[in-house]
Amino acid sequence: MHAYRTHTCADLSAANVGDTVRLSGWVHRVRDHGGILFIDLRDHYGITQVLCDPDSPVFAQVEKVRSEWCIRIDGVVKARDASLVNPKLPTGEIEVFVRDIETLGAADELPLIVFGDQEYPEETRLRYRYLDLRREVMQKNMTLRSDVVASMRRRMWDRGFREYQTPIITASSPEGARDFLVPSRLHPGKFYALPQAPQQFKQLIMVSGFDKYFQIAPCFRDEDPRADRSPTDFYQLDLEMSFVTQQDVFDTIQPVIGGVFEEFGNGRKVDQTWEQISYKDAALWYGTDKPDLRNPIKMQIVSDHFAGSGFAIFAKLLEQDGTQIRAIPAPGGGSRKFCDRMNAFAQKEGLPGMGYIFWRDKGDVLRGELGDLLTAKIKAEKKKDESLVAKISSEADAKAVELDRLEQEANLTAVRPVEAAGPLAKNIGHERTEAIRQQLGLGVGDAAFFLGGKPKQFESVAGRARTAIGEELGLTDKDRFAFAWIVDFPIYEKDAESGKIDFEHNPFSMPQGGMEALLGDPLEVLGFQYDLACNGYELVSGAIRNHRPEIMFKAFEIAGYGEEEVRKRFGGMVNAFRFGAPPHGGCAAGIDRIVMLLADEANIREVIMFPMNQRAEDVMMGAPSEPTPDQLMELRLRSIPQD
Amino acid sequence: MHAYRTHTCADLSAANVGDTVRLSGWVHRVRDHGGILFIDLRDHYGITQVLCDPDSPVFAQVEKVRSEWCIRIDGVVKARDASLVNPKLPTGEIEVFVRDIETLGAADELPLIVFGDQEYPEETRLRYRYLDLRREVMQKNMTLRSDVVASMRRRMWDRGFREYQTPIITASSPEGARDFLVPSRLHPGKFYALPQAPQQFKQLIMVSGFDKYFQIAPCFRDEDPRADRSPTDFYQLDLEMSFVTQQDVFDTIQPVIGGVFEEFGNGRKVDQTWEQISYKDAALWYGTDKPDLRNPIKMQIVSDHFAGSGFAIFAKLLEQDGTQIRAIPAPGGGSRKFCDRMNAFAQKEGLPGMGYIFWRDKGDVLRGELGDLLTAKIKAEKKKDESLVAKISSEADAKAVELDRLEQEANLTAVRPVEAAGPLAKNIGHERTEAIRQQLGLGVGDAAFFLGGKPKQFESVAGRARTAIGEELGLTDKDRFAFAWIVDFPIYEKDAESGKIDFEHNPFSMPQGGMEALLGDPLEVLGFQYDLACNGYELVSGAIRNHRPEIMFKAFEIAGYGEEEVRKRFGGMVNAFRFGAPPHGGCAAGIDRIVMLLADEANIREVIMFPMNQRAEDVMMGAPSEPTPDQLMELRLRSIPQD
Repeated sequence: MHAYRTHTCADLSAANVGDTVRLSGWVHRVRDHGGILFIDLRDHYGITQVLCDPDSPVFAQVEKVRSEWCIRIDGVVKARDASLVNPKLPTGEIEVFVRDIETLGAADELPLIVFGDQEYPEETRLRYRYLDLRREVMQKNMTLRSDVVASMRRRMWDRGFREYQTPIITASSPEGARDFLVPSRLHPGKFYALPQAPQQFKQLIMVSGFDKYFQIAPCFRDEDPRADRSPTDFYQLDLEMSFVTQQDVFDTIQPVIGGVFEEFGNGRKVDQTWEQISYKDAALWYGTDKPDLRNPIKMQIVSDHFAGSGFAIFAKLLEQDGTQIRAIPAPGGGSRKFCDRMNAFAQKEGLPGMGYIFWRDKGDVLRGELGDLLTAKIKAEKKKDESLVAKISSEADAKAVELDRLEQEANLTAVRPVEAAGPLAKNIGHERTEAIRQQLGLGVGDAAFFLGGKPKQFESVAGRARTAIGEELGLTDKDRFAFAWIVDFPIYEKDAESGKIDFEHNPFSMPQGGMEALLGDPLEVLGFQYDLACNGYELVSGAIRNHRPEIMFKAFEIAGYGEEEVRKRFGGMVNAFRFGAPPHGGCAAGIDRIVMLLADEANIREVIMFPMNQRAEDVMMGAPSEPTPDQLMELRLRSIPQD
Repeated sequence: MHAYRTHTCADLSAANVGDTVRLSGWVHRVRDHGGILFIDLRDHYGITQVLCDPDSPVFAQVEKVRSEWCIRIDGVVKARDASLVNPKLPTGEIEVFVRDIETLGAADELPLIVFGDQEYPEETRLRYRYLDLRREVMQKNMTLRSDVVASMRRRMWDRGFREYQTPIITASSPEGARDFLVPSRLHPGKFYALPQAPQQFKQLIMVSGFDKYFQIAPCFRDEDPRADRSPTDFYQLDLEMSFVTQQDVFDTIQPVIGGVFEEFGNGRKVDQTWEQISYKDAALWYGTDKPDLRNPIKMQIVSDHFAGSGFAIFAKLLEQDGTQIRAIPAPGGGSRKFCDRMNAFAQKEGLPGMGYIFWRDKGDVLRGELGDLLTAKIKAEKKKDESLVAKISSEADAKAVELDRLEQEANLTAVRPVEAAGPLAKNIGHERTEAIRQQLGLGVGDAAFFLGGKPKQFESVAGRARTAIGEELGLTDKDRFAFAWIVDFPIYEKDAESGKIDFEHNPFSMPQGGMEALLGDPLEVLGFQYDLACNGYELVSGAIRNHRPEIMFKAFEIAGYGEEEVRKRFGGMVNAFRFGAPPHGGCAAGIDRIVMLLADEANIREVIMFPMNQRAEDVMMGAPSEPTPDQLMELRLRSIPQD
């Protein structure tokens, strides 16, 4: 018999009844039912019910075991009574009667209970991660992650890609984020850097003629921690291809990413067609370049309706250059209560507020007013105020006539009469509210919110308001993975303060139109550069690269970097481009985020085996820690004390 | 038509004749045959012959291209004349007549020619690695590496393992080698470390209940460069399993490693049975714990034959405690010339020399001597020296009688008469040389070499001599991958100078016999610890781990580490063992070395895409480099100038 097990804790079924078996695992739960001890014995694969009655020779030993002890038992498999069969458990037909037991690893008192759903502070969970990871949800998340990565690999190989490993201890390559540095012992005073991404290396692999590269690549950025970002290392599915256009990259990666979501999405809908939305349209429609398209709301420009209108704030605003009024349609949001709540949201986001209009049925309004009058009339009658009764009666009569006329007209035209409400509506008048309503395709029961100013200044708040509105109104389909390519990113942006032109995204992308485009207005130049948005996250980012040294130097020159500096910063790559560089492009997909979405978790730490905490510390292993004086001396470094 | 290609350079065959195609690739060679330009166009997949005759509209452009330009051509596929078909090339049936050409990437004058087999200094190859990698052998090595890693992964999944990623920026974990440190910006004065191996993390994964883990894991050791070791990062197939014995680990990894050698060994023989050799036997038989078993030579202890013998050096040596004489049998090495060469080898290795004996046929010796006499007789006859002639004749007659007697005896006994030769043989006499010969199973034409002293002092030289002898005599089967498990490593060793007991290998292994064994003589304690040797390299190293805190603390105590210090150094793991640790074990296989053996390369840099040079520098990317003052300030570090 094997030293530890003949079966896993998920293996035994009715077919094993009568067998003598050996199992090893953890004590998930112990219960004492009338002197008989029931142990749920758990391993990675499942749970088996183990029994020990008082006449067992090892009863005294079994009595001692506690939750999370690791034990080995020998026993005989028996069928459960029909009434006790548990169809939810693969081993639910049987139980094992203990004949022998061995404690493989006892456990001290537990700082974190594995069984059940009790919540613990993150610090406790990370300090005792090995206990936290024994919980069912964490076992699932980690195996999901492992399966997702394996599926990505298989899909990449199926598409003719090979995985090549690139250096981890390498040169500093300033790409926007901060490098982690590694002091060199053999070259005192000099430092290596950990790669923010294998960007330059994968491009060099293309120049080396390998045609199709991918890697599940560790990436390193010394950034401040965030819920959807690891503060140290994280993983990307990194790929690059030679002799391709942007569309080729899309056609390659869609079945990989889409396929993974189909495979592991647990039945949630996965978009089959991935729209291509320009960066400009995404900003306008969704207020972000990573829109959540499960939310059907699309914003629109409605400046014309406010220019010269009675709503002075917007009318005045529009007299300034570069300003705009945008509307967020809110189908089903047509109540004052909802509109006020969204307005409060905008104020919390730092805006003075969002103007709004909501539309209601004019007949309903009249009926409401008529009802109010009749209630007032009854009160007046009780008070015997004859003159008031008369006044209200005449008002009510007039209202009833108006209502009657309205209903007749509605019946004739088969169109319900609509009334725009809210403070803004009164200011701009019926004609304009009606034009807005028509443009936005809204009707009774709907609302629209309005934001004005320079788009850059309100776009992101507008985007968040759109999200909040979609959520509140239940418009966002939670059961779906909605994908879109965001394309046509501008290569450059102008710094608002300094007026300086700098790269908007990443300096390695090929400008659309090549060298010729660079000779015109830089702010008009778009790049062959793209992101994949899914449910409000950026999952993939990539580009067709600028592989022509002369175009690359020109592109850098526009952003104020001389040839000398480009050679210094990106020398490895720029030199290589002098020796027959092929056109190439690719992208990188964030694995942690993809798994996070699939696992339906909101925090990246739920899908990483041993994550850092929010202060970039590993509280379990004690990192970072103070080096020994010998280590510092060997590296010829000295720490500067805090001020 | 696609912007860059309708086919790869390996795709076209007779079936495409008449097609208009588009190809992209590199100009491998250009030849001008009577005004017609022949271009071998190369991509990752193959080579296609492209032609341009002077009446082509693009002749002038085609004339300009040079080696390693990256170009796109459009053309028509034509069948080659039967006499010009190249059956060695997949595209050897056709050639493509150029109609259009586009330069995708021109090339400056090349510092390294891709075509052909010219050798370049390593520095040039590394500086222009992207050109070096275009060479056929490098393309093969890199795709081999990629395929090997993929095959390992597949084999691990097939065996029920999942791949889990462990942190790269983590805690210092002193395991013997030197850590690379990473200064923390958020915690000034503190450092992270890059993992020398995911040892503690994989053990924590077992404590977390994951049962079977593997990872193609980057490992980091700040070690001085060597031909078979990367000075920065390298990769291991790292695995760990719960509830297993040592034999379970062997049974798991053998089909993985052995399978990879079968799959990629290119027909070279792969051992099917992997012997288990104790560390002690390996040292005795092979003088190393990573023996090359393609070499059949096994050393033996022959002290008894030298004790009290006429060979004073050895006889005296053996009077000291702990000394031994060992023999290296050399079948087929029975010539004075060979023996002298090997003796010189030992002297070059710093020994006073190796004693030797070689065995020859006594009949042959007599016949030789008889021949010499007859030659001398002829000379004497020429000189007419009658008395000398007579003397020689009588000697020759006696020799002839002796020879006759010898041959008759040999015929009777059917055993050829053997004579031991060499200086040592004379000193110890026939009886002892004969006993040695019998023990070693040698005969006529063979030799044996002898080394004496304290085994630790000569074992490694003996091992190298064994290798040299096997090589020189052609005993080593070059066409074979020979595997053996080296087992039963001692847990402790005694420092020769200080007499201090320290860990021999790694402190995490379970001692055979557990706590009880630790209560006896530490130097007698063996560990459940093992290496896999292949062709003289250590390919795999592993152990069944010590998962019991009390045994671990005891083991460390013997080596002089208090509980406090163990907690400080290995706190993460030691704490975890208090909460139900399962018995577990595993191993790690060196991927770079495995690929090196498969590719039949002697240097690890031939199988790494972008390796560091021997001074741990990346001369292409310029690493390591000086940090900016801002970077140092952010990390609150100062470099100490060189003395």
